[in-house]
Amino acid sequence: MDALGRRARAASRVIALAPTSQRNDALVAMAAALRARQAPILAANALDLAEARAAGQTPAFIDRLLLDPARLSAVAEAVASVATLPDPLGRVLATWTQPNGLRFERVATPLGVIAVIFESRPNVTADAGALCLKSGNAAILRAGSDSFRTATEIAAALREGLESAGLPGDAIQLVPTRDRDAVGEILKGLDGSVDVVVPRGGKSLVARVQSDARVPVFAHLDGNCHVYVHAAAELAMAREIVLNAKLRRTGVCGAAETLLVDEACAATHLEPLVTALIEAGCAVRGDARTQAAVARAEAASEADWATEYLDRIIAVKVVAGLDEAIAHIDRYGSHHTDAIVTADAAAAGRFLAETDSAIVLHNASTQFADGGEFGFGAEIGIATGRMHARGPVGVEQLCSFKYRVHGNGQIRP
Amino acid sequence: MDALGRRARAASRVIALAPTSQRNDALVAMAAALRARQAPILAANALDLAEARAAGQTPAFIDRLLLDPARLSAVAEAVASVATLPDPLGRVLATWTQPNGLRFERVATPLGVIAVIFESRPNVTADAGALCLKSGNAAILRAGSDSFRTATEIAAALREGLESAGLPGDAIQLVPTRDRDAVGEILKGLDGSVDVVVPRGGKSLVARVQSDARVPVFAHLDGNCHVYVHAAAELAMAREIVLNAKLRRTGVCGAAETLLVDEACAATHLEPLVTALIEAGCAVRGDARTQAAVARAEAASEADWATEYLDRIIAVKVVAGLDEAIAHIDRYGSHHTDAIVTADAAAAGRFLAETDSAIVLHNASTQFADGGEFGFGAEIGIATGRMHARGPVGVEQLCSFKYRVHGNGQIRP
Repeated sequence: MDALGRRARAASRVIALAPTSQRNDALVAMAAALRARQAPILAANALDLAEARAAGQTPAFIDRLLLDPARLSAVAEAVASVATLPDPLGRVLATWTQPNGLRFERVATPLGVIAVIFESRPNVTADAGALCLKSGNAAILRAGSDSFRTATEIAAALREGLESAGLPGDAIQLVPTRDRDAVGEILKGLDGSVDVVVPRGGKSLVARVQSDARVPVFAHLDGNCHVYVHAAAELAMAREIVLNAKLRRTGVCGAAETLLVDEACAATHLEPLVTALIEAGCAVRGDARTQAAVARAEAASEADWATEYLDRIIAVKVVAGLDEAIAHIDRYGSHHTDAIVTADAAAAGRFLAETDSAIVLHNASTQFADGGEFGFGAEIGIATGRMHARGPVGVEQLCSFKYRVHGNGQIRP
Repeated sequence: MDALGRRARAASRVIALAPTSQRNDALVAMAAALRARQAPILAANALDLAEARAAGQTPAFIDRLLLDPARLSAVAEAVASVATLPDPLGRVLATWTQPNGLRFERVATPLGVIAVIFESRPNVTADAGALCLKSGNAAILRAGSDSFRTATEIAAALREGLESAGLPGDAIQLVPTRDRDAVGEILKGLDGSVDVVVPRGGKSLVARVQSDARVPVFAHLDGNCHVYVHAAAELAMAREIVLNAKLRRTGVCGAAETLLVDEACAATHLEPLVTALIEAGCAVRGDARTQAAVARAEAASEADWATEYLDRIIAVKVVAGLDEAIAHIDRYGSHHTDAIVTADAAAAGRFLAETDSAIVLHNASTQFADGGEFGFGAEIGIATGRMHARGPVGVEQLCSFKYRVHGNGQIRP
């Protein structure tokens, strides 16, 4: 594994300096290789699927693992689309001149080597590899053992694309073993060869990575997101946003898990909002006020406020005002994504300033917590840490920077 | 120690939301309290000095520890000057609007709780506390045991200033014990209460922090900086820059430790540069070409290329050109600060692009590696990692960010 890390480090130096056009050519060639290798990729996927079915995996698991020609085409298309994004490298992030004439530039550079640890979704191999390459980073990809054969074939296509563009194939390496010890070695940093780890998968994977990693991690453990319907919320807008935030897709990290309703509008808004949720097929676990307003609401326990259901269930609580809403989110939330619905600009301003989450929204659904919706083109994940990357992690967040200083003979007095 | 961490976290929430004027008022009050408490601070310093002298510490150590009225006044002035810096919080780092009308803002926020671990310099207590407060972060300060009494008195002044401005005194806490186990607990993160650790001190301290910390670290271990005199360098400019980079102050991390001379100009430049260094009182350890050019040059060993002397010694090597210079710096350098002297813009451009250091300079001294010289007003240190902060770490680098999203009822399709 350390040798794999050294190869990644060496490759990272080459692709860090590769021109934009060469990295983009490689992405296009990677997409073409994914299409050209459809037969071996789908054959490998069939073996992975057979093993998963024999092991009694759930239909949802099988669906995540499944590739077919349409899905593989979408994977290739996603890789090709990364080529069309603006180059994140070389951006001048700031520039200024000091009185002594020295001109300073802060310029975007790659981070180095990014390790991505994922589970069963085969598309992550290609997506993560593409985003790392675009941002000039080498990638070490660790696939879940269930998707190992599929990931191996996809990685072969990525290598072919890299090499056909004249870049080192080691710029995107799949860990060539299902041995579980490999994850532990990656989390220790492979003797300094890994700059950051990105876990892509369920909570147990993320928790293990956050607990054991000796290198920085871009991740979020929970997405316990809130919609706070403020006293000055329009009911129609609140209803649309609440239903969308909870139910558009319940399994995404930006799905709302708790609805907070201001007591100042509870008399008019609480019953219609809760009824709309129930009629849309969502179970409601409410506090006493909520149960009093809608008999079909179940009773919420303390644990409900801290639960990320990722399901058609929502917790509902009446709060005394903005301060209690912000305090509730601070206590039970996960600093991921939280929204306020209100026509009161001052209240919105306070909520956006004081809620300590990666993403705070005013009059919009929490389901916009997504790199694509932010306009990042693609994301490798969403981070809730405060260091370096926060919120959706796109190619710009996979960059570091350096200072270029231009002089004409300046010495320091 | 965990209780201290919890108090820091609670205080961090308050100062994160404190208005600019209140944080600045506290800084001014802290400076005033430092002046008002001159007698107890100097008395405590006298006790620390007596203990250090009795323990046989070196004169250099005693000098670092020493406070007198002038030095204390400078410490207070430095704290007051942080109040005059622009507020790093609330800066809109980026803003854009998506086709659906959602308006996105990336806005600077505090990191949270910053632990600073330092050795004997008493001014670090005040400097670090001031920079953390300015950037809306709570600080946990761990003083070296040699300066513990002095740091305790300085911290009391900082607390008085905070409280007189209506801010929590716990926003800047000195670890109230000389117990060495406290450092280990800080490096483990105090049960999630520490967001980043900044070591300020010698190499052994930095190495321990980098090795043991389970939270992110802003630091540099070495400053093995290079000046590369390219074929197209003007000799007069090269001489000025080399002498300044090496000798202005030899103990700073931006001091040059190796001079690389291009063989294309060695016939004209090598002897004058080496002679100038020797005549300025600098020992030269050179390769065979250097020794052949100047008899007074000693022989360099392999270890010299990797050595940060922090003294009046420099290693000198003749290189075959730009590629060898960059490769030498990559192999032996510390990714801190490196400079090229040349009149050739293309060569300078390649050097600045391809040298993987936090700071790269063209025709300027490496001694500009300093937050003040960058115009940052003050720095808490210089980082050579690639995550979050790189180069001088000023108040802007002590910030994180969040996304504010402004809608008018948008839901995700």
